[in-house]
Amino acid sequence: MGTVKPSIDSVRGFQVAGVHAGLKKDGAPDFSLIVSEVDCVAAGVFTRNKVKAAPVLLDMQRLEENPKSIRAVATNTISANACTGAIGLKNARASANLVADALSIVAEQVLVMSTGVIGTHLPMDKIARGVELSSANLGSDWRAVAAGIMTTDTRPKLGSITVNTDAGTYTIAGIVKGAGMIAPNMATMLSVIVTDAELLLPDLQSSLSSAAQQSYNRIVVDGDTSTNDTVLLLANGMSGVSVASDAELDAFQAALNALAQFLAQEVVRDGEGVTKFVTLNIVNAESEADAERIGQTIGASVLTKSAFYGSDANWGRIVAAAGRADTPFDPDSASLRVAAGESVASDAPGLEIFSGGMPTDYREADAAAIMAEPSITFTLDCGIGEGAATIWTCDISHEYISINGDYRS
Amino acid sequence: MGTVKPSIDSVRGFQVAGVHAGLKKDGAPDFSLIVSEVDCVAAGVFTRNKVKAAPVLLDMQRLEENPKSIRAVATNTISANACTGAIGLKNARASANLVADALSIVAEQVLVMSTGVIGTHLPMDKIARGVELSSANLGSDWRAVAAGIMTTDTRPKLGSITVNTDAGTYTIAGIVKGAGMIAPNMATMLSVIVTDAELLLPDLQSSLSSAAQQSYNRIVVDGDTSTNDTVLLLANGMSGVSVASDAELDAFQAALNALAQFLAQEVVRDGEGVTKFVTLNIVNAESEADAERIGQTIGASVLTKSAFYGSDANWGRIVAAAGRADTPFDPDSASLRVAAGESVASDAPGLEIFSGGMPTDYREADAAAIMAEPSITFTLDCGIGEGAATIWTCDISHEYISINGDYRS
Repeated sequence: MGTVKPSIDSVRGFQVAGVHAGLKKDGAPDFSLIVSEVDCVAAGVFTRNKVKAAPVLLDMQRLEENPKSIRAVATNTISANACTGAIGLKNARASANLVADALSIVAEQVLVMSTGVIGTHLPMDKIARGVELSSANLGSDWRAVAAGIMTTDTRPKLGSITVNTDAGTYTIAGIVKGAGMIAPNMATMLSVIVTDAELLLPDLQSSLSSAAQQSYNRIVVDGDTSTNDTVLLLANGMSGVSVASDAELDAFQAALNALAQFLAQEVVRDGEGVTKFVTLNIVNAESEADAERIGQTIGASVLTKSAFYGSDANWGRIVAAAGRADTPFDPDSASLRVAAGESVASDAPGLEIFSGGMPTDYREADAAAIMAEPSITFTLDCGIGEGAATIWTCDISHEYISINGDYRS
Repeated sequence: MGTVKPSIDSVRGFQVAGVHAGLKKDGAPDFSLIVSEVDCVAAGVFTRNKVKAAPVLLDMQRLEENPKSIRAVATNTISANACTGAIGLKNARASANLVADALSIVAEQVLVMSTGVIGTHLPMDKIARGVELSSANLGSDWRAVAAGIMTTDTRPKLGSITVNTDAGTYTIAGIVKGAGMIAPNMATMLSVIVTDAELLLPDLQSSLSSAAQQSYNRIVVDGDTSTNDTVLLLANGMSGVSVASDAELDAFQAALNALAQFLAQEVVRDGEGVTKFVTLNIVNAESEADAERIGQTIGASVLTKSAFYGSDANWGRIVAAAGRADTPFDPDSASLRVAAGESVASDAPGLEIFSGGMPTDYREADAAAIMAEPSITFTLDCGIGEGAATIWTCDISHEYISINGDYRS
């Protein structure tokens, strides 16, 4: 297995385009299209919010009814097409119809994604313009596609990984958008991952679910969960490499996990107003689920995030957040270390600042020097079991408030 | 029943003092003492955080073992005496001992509260100075007591209500501190309520639990829950009015609820960096607990709070927050109204901005005019049951981030 690189050269059989359809006022790419030359097996993971956007409802239905001959994914920005009732569902279908007509395929082969303001109807004239322009300009500019799904993101986020096997080489590549409203259970995040490997549908879906659980579901920007979260995985088999045996599936899973974690972390790094990237290793909790819950509670704590922003090693807020997670926790058994940089391991190094229910006699200057770094790792050893999970999160800054105080204007 | 007024004249048999013991750097009151001439029956409600501060552990034990002869409550600021291990518990006991010595009572009659930074030991010399000064200056300056428990609060918060009965008149009076870290289940909030009515212990405890559930547990500033939350209720019976029959208890409960709601709302109004007071009426949910959970999820949503700050009628974020509360919710059955001011009722007036799964055709200018007000009421009709609850919350501002980014410095 290779390593993830932050770019995509090409993935056999896929063509893409990111264009300006007139949705964004500044002329930036605002509509994107990903097309496979041949039918794809496709899997999806969607928001658990009870308020689901029209494109989510449509894609869920298509993956239920027609998961083995997907050909295209179209994404628009500016309007989330959420809370738009029957009109919204009609517009989502109409968008897919436009793509199908342009590509001479059938509508059931098209998936759609939307991101932007909730409660506004899709401007169908601009969607039509986006379909027209993108379908006429298909190529291999994956960076433009990643740019075409951005909202308050500051940069395109994309990555790829190549896997060499005895039967040949295949690639897994993906794009993601995030920024605000990112939380456990995926929040306003759209991601499309494609591969030219060949997989059976059940294997593809279980690989995606497993990867999402270890990546997109383990990041916290602001604790909110959106109406539109979607992660899609399309496999077109054009590499001729079949992934079917346990060993082949393990290799695929490892590569997919690495890519999904890279993309998920990119979302945190590019979160709204983020100045610090924080890795939270929760180890020796009663179970993995407990470790995850503790990490997510810490990551979503506004008080803790404010302290990260202020470069304050306020371990008290971290321990207090752990104490209110709905899970077994005993401060007297717990210890907390902090280190500069990123380290995902139960034995991550660092300065121990809390142990046995009390702060250690660490020097505040030492902690402050670590906290001043742009990337920090906290390792919370719960001391009561063997469950572990790593959560990636960030600080909350003045800029976050500015962006979200006036988003719709 | 009278109405709550934002001051306390006197409560028979109680004497108080708020003094500067040298804990705060600016010379402001930082230590307070409340003393009853005679034994009080006392009840408490404490944080549900698994990380409980030493004073919380001590008070819980005292109210378990000696709830019928409490005489004093002493509160220090600057140090929360939380995450301080055995030394912390020893210091909490020592603080109570100092009070007992100064007042010539026994230590088991003294309750203690602490607020401030987690993980620092009580500076016992200054605690001794606080006990010495406050016990020598007991009087009726309740405003000084309320000031003496403040941390990042901007003003003392106190109130009282008088109840006239055939048997005479009694008073219920209380102080509260809050500011940041205020959430469902009480967060870093300290409150002491005293009354000169006479109640039996079980009635007192159930009255307090019920009042807290409808007040302190229904406010959200930042969604965090602290290690030190404490609400105490002391009854010394000095008015000679017994509260024992169902009718008497109902009248007491109504007055206590009104006072507790006033004090809880004061905490929100004085929250860190708060510029808007928001009343969330959740009506026609499947149950009262569901309504409360939906309101708390909306109130704790950073995205929603940012929109409040920006005076943006971003109903989409409110509906999306409701959709991710762990409770039944169907956007197609729901409607949302917004009005200026405070209104706690299922038929609260307002501009309908969302209905039947979609925004209504309201004029954005009308919504913006309402959102520009310092006090706003949202009424979310879930349309699926009869459960209702009102949550009081606020916006999140630049100032909040500034305060909490650098609190320990």
